[in-house]
Formats: sequence, structure tokens, C-alpha cells
Amino acid sequence: MEPIDFYFDFSSPYAYLAAQGIDEIGARHGREVRWRPYLMGAVFKRTGARPLVDQDMKGPYARHDLARSARRLGVPFRLPDDFPFMSVAACRAFYWLTEDDAAAAKALAKALLDKAFGQGEAVGPPAAVQAVAAEQGHDPEQVAAALADPAVKERLRAEVDAAIAAGVFGSPFFVVDGEPFWGHDRMDHVEQWLARGGW
Amino acid sequence: MEPIDFYFDFSSPYAYLAAQGIDEIGARHGREVRWRPYLMGAVFKRTGARPLVDQDMKGPYARHDLARSARRLGVPFRLPDDFPFMSVAACRAFYWLTEDDAAAAKALAKALLDKAFGQGEAVGPPAAVQAVAAEQGHDPEQVAAALADPAVKERLRAEVDAAIAAGVFGSPFFVVDGEPFWGHDRMDHVEQWLARGGW
Repeated sequence: MEPIDFYFDFSSPYAYLAAQGIDEIGARHGREVRWRPYLMGAVFKRTGARPLVDQDMKGPYARHDLARSARRLGVPFRLPDDFPFMSVAACRAFYWLTEDDAAAAKALAKALLDKAFGQGEAVGPPAAVQAVAAEQGHDPEQVAAALADPAVKERLRAEVDAAIAAGVFGSPFFVVDGEPFWGHDRMDHVEQWLARGGW
Repeated sequence: MEPIDFYFDFSSPYAYLAAQGIDEIGARHGREVRWRPYLMGAVFKRTGARPLVDQDMKGPYARHDLARSARRLGVPFRLPDDFPFMSVAACRAFYWLTEDDAAAAKALAKALLDKAFGQGEAVGPPAAVQAVAAEQGHDPEQVAAALADPAVKERLRAEVDAAIAAGVFGSPFFVVDGEPFWGHDRMDHVEQWLARGGW
């Protein structure tokens, strides 16, 4: 069966919440979940949209809803001071790792999201990404080289283009057998779609 | 106990979906639901936001998600040709009726939403609102007079101001004991909040 595509931006707190449960949803229905970080900034550039927390009225609500949704899941939550942040380095580290070891890349992604939104610490700067990768057992020198590798940069560009071509514009965003679902608050539909095979 | 406040715009298809179940959620938890239509255009004017279905990438997704969400609920769904539409007349008719008979006003609101999004017919123009009200047993002449009544106009203005002052910016938008919940896809949180008394 086709994997579930899980698109997200590392700077997205709702992606952190989604990351708590999407693999479990896949496992319950015999599906792999393919984590596909991308850069929502590319979408914002195209559509003129702005980050949710920067928007009038929606921003304060989103901060409240995020904290409340995290409490509901029983997970820690804290927004980093530098937020939203550039997630290019995190994405590059992910795609570099995933070439050889998809599980290690997913573990790094989880660690980055936990650092950013569970602990509220910066994971935008390359040095911060290297530090999290080092905690995961990766060689900081190799990570630094990967972040500057033209092939890795190109891989990320291709992933961003592919996401936008697939109609992805938010984070988290799921695609199940070609069916798009946007938002942490659509994960119940994702699970029902898997259970029923659509409706 | 305090009623649940259900804010919505008559031109909001997600409000049509929410209207299918919000009274039942209230009833399960011993709460009245106070329907409070308002004009999202006033929010758009303030925040610079645009209607969802007019937005690049999000618009096509929303049309797909709406039809899929309606199928999931087992209710008919069709967007009217003239959409989004001006919902001033619908709001005025509602607030005129609710002064004397809140149940009749709610029945009119349901009929207007069903006409707009169950049948895909226009309910923006005053004549269309009069026709739906007539189907509900109201005198079209009285409705026409109400739509032009300065007191009714003022009531609607006050409601819109109150909604914005309460932080309401979307449709549907629920407030339970001061706790705000935005979106049709947050109704599960509304119900859990009522069941648990918060978390």
C-alpha cells in the first residue's frame, strides 16, 4: 500500500502536534508515513499568505489554541523566542540523512520539532541543527558539510517544488492515496479515510 | 449554565456544516446554543483577510474539503453560483425575529443555510431572504419592513462589534464559558471541553 505523505515545515507548531501521532495512525492501518519537510515560505511567496501567528486576531487565537491542544495531548509546549524561524538548515539535514537512513532522518525531525516546540529552543540556525544532530549521534562536521552540499540544496528545492505541485500549502498537510487533508485538526478525517477506504 | 455562543456568517459553508450538529452537542451537555450570525466582511476589512475560497491553493482545497466533509456527515452540499454573498439581509431578518421568538429565528437561520449550501440557491438578496422567511410562515411585508428598520440595522451593527470585541474572526466560531474555538474542525474539542469542563 502507498505510504501516507506527511508534509510539514519545521517552523510549524501544529506540525509538532501532528508529529506526536501520525506514525501511530499509519501503523494502525498498515501504512508507512513518509515525512516530507518543505518550506512554507515558498508558498507564502506565491500566495501572499502570512504565518498564522503574525496575523491580526488569528495570531493570539492560534497561540491559545496551540497551548490548549498540547495540553489535550499531554505534551509539553513552548514557542521559541525566535519564531517563526528559517527552517532551511533543518530541512537540508533531514534530506541529507534520509538518503541513507530514513528512520534516522525521521528521528532527527522529531528531535528538532521537540527542541523547537517542546522546549522552545531555536532550531533555525545551522549551528542549532548541528547540535541536535550531534545529540542524535551524527558527526557535526558531516552535518556542516551536508548543509553546504549543492546536491542536498538541490534535493530540498526539488522537494519544495514537488510539494507545491501536489497542491500542498499548509503544515501539517497529509496526502492519503491522492486525497489531501490540511491541518492538525483534520487528522481524525485522515484516520477515518484510512479505516473506511474513503467515503 | 451559560449558553454556548455559536458565531457564524450566513455566507460560510463551514457554518452550514457546523449548524448540522452544534445544537445536538449543546443538548448532550445541558447547554443552550445561542446562534449569533455576524458579518465576516467586517473582520476582513479590519484584518485584510480574504474569503477562503478566493485564496490561491487554499480555495480549491476548501471546495474539495467542504464536499468531502458534507458526504461524511451525510448531508447535501452545493455552493451557490453567487458565492461568497452579502449576508446583511439574512442577519437582519434573524435579529428582527429573535427579539420575539429565538426558536423561530434559529429555524429561519437553518432554512437559510440549507437553502444556500444544501441546495446551492442564493440567499444574499433581500427578496431571497423574504422568500425563505415566507416558507417559514413569516409575512413577507413584515420581513421587508424589518430589513429596512433602523433599529434592526443598529442591532446588527452592535452584534458585529460585539463579536469582534470578543475576538471572533472566523465562521463557525464557538465560545464556551469564555473559551474560544475556531472552525468546524474544532467541534470535537468543543464537545470534549463541555464533557470534561476544560483540561
